[in-house]
Amino acid sequence: MEKIFSYTELYNFTYNIFKAIGCNDVDAITATKALLAADIRGIDSHGVARLSGYVRLWEAKRINATPQIKVVHETPSTAVVDGDSGLGLVVAPSAMQVAIDKAKNVGTGWVSVQNSNHFGIAGYHAMMALQHDMIGIAFTNASPLVSPTFSVERLLGTNPICVVIPAGEEPPFVADLATTTAANGKLEILQRKGGVAPLGWIQTKEGKASTDPHELKAGGALLPLGGDREHGSHKGYALGAIVDIFSAVLSGANYGPWVPPFPAYVPMPDEQPGKGIGHFFGAMRIDAFRPAADFKMHMDKWIKRFRSAKTIKGEESVLIPGDPEREMELERMKNGIPLLKPVVEDLKFLGERLNFAFLQ
Amino acid sequence: MEKIFSYTELYNFTYNIFKAIGCNDVDAITATKALLAADIRGIDSHGVARLSGYVRLWEAKRINATPQIKVVHETPSTAVVDGDSGLGLVVAPSAMQVAIDKAKNVGTGWVSVQNSNHFGIAGYHAMMALQHDMIGIAFTNASPLVSPTFSVERLLGTNPICVVIPAGEEPPFVADLATTTAANGKLEILQRKGGVAPLGWIQTKEGKASTDPHELKAGGALLPLGGDREHGSHKGYALGAIVDIFSAVLSGANYGPWVPPFPAYVPMPDEQPGKGIGHFFGAMRIDAFRPAADFKMHMDKWIKRFRSAKTIKGEESVLIPGDPEREMELERMKNGIPLLKPVVEDLKFLGERLNFAFLQ
Repeated sequence: MEKIFSYTELYNFTYNIFKAIGCNDVDAITATKALLAADIRGIDSHGVARLSGYVRLWEAKRINATPQIKVVHETPSTAVVDGDSGLGLVVAPSAMQVAIDKAKNVGTGWVSVQNSNHFGIAGYHAMMALQHDMIGIAFTNASPLVSPTFSVERLLGTNPICVVIPAGEEPPFVADLATTTAANGKLEILQRKGGVAPLGWIQTKEGKASTDPHELKAGGALLPLGGDREHGSHKGYALGAIVDIFSAVLSGANYGPWVPPFPAYVPMPDEQPGKGIGHFFGAMRIDAFRPAADFKMHMDKWIKRFRSAKTIKGEESVLIPGDPEREMELERMKNGIPLLKPVVEDLKFLGERLNFAFLQ
Repeated sequence: MEKIFSYTELYNFTYNIFKAIGCNDVDAITATKALLAADIRGIDSHGVARLSGYVRLWEAKRINATPQIKVVHETPSTAVVDGDSGLGLVVAPSAMQVAIDKAKNVGTGWVSVQNSNHFGIAGYHAMMALQHDMIGIAFTNASPLVSPTFSVERLLGTNPICVVIPAGEEPPFVADLATTTAANGKLEILQRKGGVAPLGWIQTKEGKASTDPHELKAGGALLPLGGDREHGSHKGYALGAIVDIFSAVLSGANYGPWVPPFPAYVPMPDEQPGKGIGHFFGAMRIDAFRPAADFKMHMDKWIKRFRSAKTIKGEESVLIPGDPEREMELERMKNGIPLLKPVVEDLKFLGERLNFAFLQ
């Protein structure tokens, strides 16, 4: 039950929605591109499926459509940015640009962000570095859904780590990964289909291993990458914790169980040790280490060696991080973006509320 | 079959061995402290158990005991360091100091290292940042033992990620993790005991899941964190790849399958796209982001919240990364460091060869 839309159709609708809530032209374009980067790259859970969620946060006065984003502290290679409760989709590219500008001056730039909101996919922001021959890095914390090893409490978000590395003839290396065994989006797909989750993705509210994707809504939790202690879940927990601390303890945002929830109907945590949610961005100029041409030649060699590695029988090829999303982008720019019926209905309803027909 | 030695006993013996191969006083002390940090923290695979391995690399002229370590390229926040084939145990602290010095000047420092050797545990080097109220980061690549998702080839090392974060009243957060399901040291313990490995740690040379710890020596491979595709091994593979690229493609060291092996008897790879093995270090001054006192107060709050989280029935408590190693250090400084009989025999033999009796 899917309907296909072109990138342009979704772009125009999304742009109008962001304009309708009060974004200026530049911000509406930035937010639209950042949001649709998810749909076009196949991360359907983070694209237009969330658009009405952002609008509900704006209605709840938790998103400011006309933020004054500013640097509140800095050194030659670092900054803390206050997002003024803006859309993360707008705050994040602005903060990443600060990191890039600092890298131009002193080799690298590192920016921790307070007072922001959900920023879409990390990859969009980190990939801004590529056109400057820089390595790009993006982290964010998120609503608590993940239990640390040995715990039944949800204390961390799916806290992604994204690292983007330029190559020469080869496409760039783009790793963008939730620090959990499975991203929440994968679980949502299973919930809709009534499927069974592999052991190691989730636990019940008592902390027992479970294959039922609905356990998450019954008080269960997503599990850190590794799944259980024996398979290294303490490592996934540590990685998610690092993302939380870099994004929020360093910037003055909320962290751990106090990160504001994305759904506007979920009450805010009773305590707020910081402001909004937090992100962390990095940019490293390649030629701050070695000539970019040398680096790219060796990245090409690295990528070619891994891509041509001998596979396990039955597997087609070894992938380079970013391969599946890039192929999806080519496919969807050509053939359109499929949206599930509930998402189409949600967008229609959203359009009506804001006096825009959705793709009439 | 263990024998207990005091830290001081092992210190004096190890110092004499490093002196005997030609290290100057300062380097011998540095190398001894870095090596024994593993034994004292309970990472037995990376401590004195490897001492004779370092000496054999020196005998094979692959380690230079009197290196001229130098910065070969730099910007205000970055440097590439050439380790001149020195002991990684000496090169790494020197490179980390460069990162710290740069952070003092411009907020952060990032150093990629070429032409080095095995550096012991990452944690020792990253923890140098703590006394300066900085976050410390250390990565290294290592001999290929790990297959990327879908491959039967060993193309990556266990490539650790270490991130160390200062706190206030609480002890620091110290995450030091191999990007594999299980560190090679854990497998070596099972090999000695004749134990069975959990599924998800290793695969056979055909790429089949296996519980036999000896498969690694029969052409099998360690698996990236996650274990298999369904449990996110592509994420562990991506993390190990990032460590490899930051450590070696950025610096001009060898990468992927071309990283020189630690055992001196294993032939060198037939191709050398760079020099030696590579490391990557980072230092970020806390007050380049916010006042250190504020940060530490919030880190204490973070740590206390996680440590007091409700546990799964039967589990004692939620741990903070670094807790087990710190407790081990207290225990072993008090009661001594147990060494397995084969390790004691190896050290006795090493002492005899270099005309030092081992703990007579």
